[in-house]
Amino acid sequence: MAVEPPALQVLRWDEPPDGPVLVLLDQTRLPAAETELVCTDVPALVRAIQTLAVRGAPLLGIAGAYGVALAAARGYDVDEAAELLEGARPTAVNLGYGVRLAAEAYRTAVEKGGTEGEAAAAALAAARELHRTDAAGSARMARLGLGLLDELLPGGSLRILTHCNTGALVSGGAGTAFAVALAAHRAGRLRQLWVDETRPLLQGSRLTAYEAARNGMPYSLLADNAAGSLFAAGEVDAVLIGADRIAADGSVANKVGSYPLAVLAKYHHVPFVVVAPGTTVDLGSPDGASIEVEQRPGREVTEVTAPPLPGAAAAARMSVAPPGTRAYNPAFDVTPPELVTAIVTEEGVLSPVTGDGLVELCARSRQVTIS
Amino acid sequence: MAVEPPALQVLRWDEPPDGPVLVLLDQTRLPAAETELVCTDVPALVRAIQTLAVRGAPLLGIAGAYGVALAAARGYDVDEAAELLEGARPTAVNLGYGVRLAAEAYRTAVEKGGTEGEAAAAALAAARELHRTDAAGSARMARLGLGLLDELLPGGSLRILTHCNTGALVSGGAGTAFAVALAAHRAGRLRQLWVDETRPLLQGSRLTAYEAARNGMPYSLLADNAAGSLFAAGEVDAVLIGADRIAADGSVANKVGSYPLAVLAKYHHVPFVVVAPGTTVDLGSPDGASIEVEQRPGREVTEVTAPPLPGAAAAARMSVAPPGTRAYNPAFDVTPPELVTAIVTEEGVLSPVTGDGLVELCARSRQVTIS
Repeated sequence: MAVEPPALQVLRWDEPPDGPVLVLLDQTRLPAAETELVCTDVPALVRAIQTLAVRGAPLLGIAGAYGVALAAARGYDVDEAAELLEGARPTAVNLGYGVRLAAEAYRTAVEKGGTEGEAAAAALAAARELHRTDAAGSARMARLGLGLLDELLPGGSLRILTHCNTGALVSGGAGTAFAVALAAHRAGRLRQLWVDETRPLLQGSRLTAYEAARNGMPYSLLADNAAGSLFAAGEVDAVLIGADRIAADGSVANKVGSYPLAVLAKYHHVPFVVVAPGTTVDLGSPDGASIEVEQRPGREVTEVTAPPLPGAAAAARMSVAPPGTRAYNPAFDVTPPELVTAIVTEEGVLSPVTGDGLVELCARSRQVTIS
Repeated sequence: MAVEPPALQVLRWDEPPDGPVLVLLDQTRLPAAETELVCTDVPALVRAIQTLAVRGAPLLGIAGAYGVALAAARGYDVDEAAELLEGARPTAVNLGYGVRLAAEAYRTAVEKGGTEGEAAAAALAAARELHRTDAAGSARMARLGLGLLDELLPGGSLRILTHCNTGALVSGGAGTAFAVALAAHRAGRLRQLWVDETRPLLQGSRLTAYEAARNGMPYSLLADNAAGSLFAAGEVDAVLIGADRIAADGSVANKVGSYPLAVLAKYHHVPFVVVAPGTTVDLGSPDGASIEVEQRPGREVTEVTAPPLPGAAAAARMSVAPPGTRAYNPAFDVTPPELVTAIVTEEGVLSPVTGDGLVELCARSRQVTIS
């Protein structure tokens, strides 16, 4: 068994003499450089969220909660901060969840007659609790996900295809889908991790490959559109992805490119497994059509951005299309439940994916993590 | 009706005082610059083929034929030149076809007692004839393809999704799949051309967007993996692609990413149409499995290359993955006939796609273009 590398510190609360700050690992600079980004207020954190310096559904929830704690600790208007943070990215349900959790803790403390300081401390405690809960949830998802793979694909070693980045960089712990692949690796069962580069922002090349290399996993990168050849050649045993929002009918919004993988997996009879914390489920969205999909700037497609070298102020950008070219650039797509083999949360495995099953799983999850 | 822009000159034979040359539009520099690349010998042309300065199945055939003519005209060994050229890229059947056509003309002239100069002239005449035939073939494919679309999707305007580059840049004429879209545009029937960026080398962003812009077509660029969202939203009426090799059973080898589109098209009941000259059909390859798929260097995926600016010696390259990352980088994938709605060649439309139908279509085609 290989020695495990030290856990990545992607987000931490710090209290230097001139006031509390939220310190983020700047993910836009990976893998070229491990740079810290220090947020002293909510607008800085909102910028970090929008530029994807901090990203990934579960981590966005944690960052949102700490953001509220930061506003409270520095004496800013907490309601306004919560509103700004919730609106920073529309699709990730976890962001709003984390923000509301910390804001609620703050308000409850105020209503109980607590001082500003006590209310700020309550918000921070809520953020820390969410952080810890998420790490524990990662570990449970990894265990449950590996158990599911053992059941679906008994014996033998696994060739897992994954999309976007769902590891320690998106989580308080080891992540979601990536955490399952990592658990398979640590159990000696991972034969190959196929890493989709994940255009347009290349989270697969930049972040998942970085995490796979860091953990000594056997991995290979591919252009997203080469996945079809792997399926056709019988080189994929399972697809593991995360989720940004799961609607009440089991429709899964995730990084654009997930849905084509789901269609390919169905066509080739390969399990397509979604791994996400219970907080990703949004029973308020009845179905896939009700999920708002963020449209991102066309220049993410018409230009190619490389992570900046240490010392450089900004990422290097190169135009790859003729001037004036418009681009269609949805950040997410939506996979209907009939294409999802299973949803794994920290509370259990749902398969087949049905609305009733999801409600039942959520009830379990919310009992444990909230009440 | 918009004024048609002057035809792109992508390849021409020239005879300056110091000897004949083959002049290519350097496609690696598009869309940033329109630069000519002058080949004075076969090794230079082989390099141009391997670096994709000249590319696209039909154009490779023409380039191969002129390459043989160049070797002959400059007094090099024609057999050796033919061998070098045929081996420059393994998947494109047209390259070998063009090379053999010109070499055959050369040999026949020699056998008939012709001088070196007469044999060289015969090779050049064969190359020019192939060039002309290809241009005429483009025009026929465009007409037949548009007729097919009229039949499959009567009335209304068309939203066509295409992959890679199949326009004037790959052909002696207006191209293959792109020529059909252009014909639809000129007939006032094209509502939208969806252009896959086509990773890893971005032929869609760099070349198809360039040709679409040049022709005033309504187009929008997308990351390849965003095509799924377009299908799911009902925004694609038909997929049009080219081909690098069509096996005897109707299996189609084309740019990697074509097969996932075929699976998506099938799943969404959208016609998937292959447009390619008859020379693309290789009855010597019995089926998809027998087609050799070129594996290209991993750095095309681990690095991102931008077209060089005018004056720059080479393309700008940026690493986007951690050092040591391996990549799976097949240049092509293979779509089985059951996923292909129709194959359009210059001689007719084959639908459904069957081995027998393909033999019949080829017999017609070869009668006209060779004998």
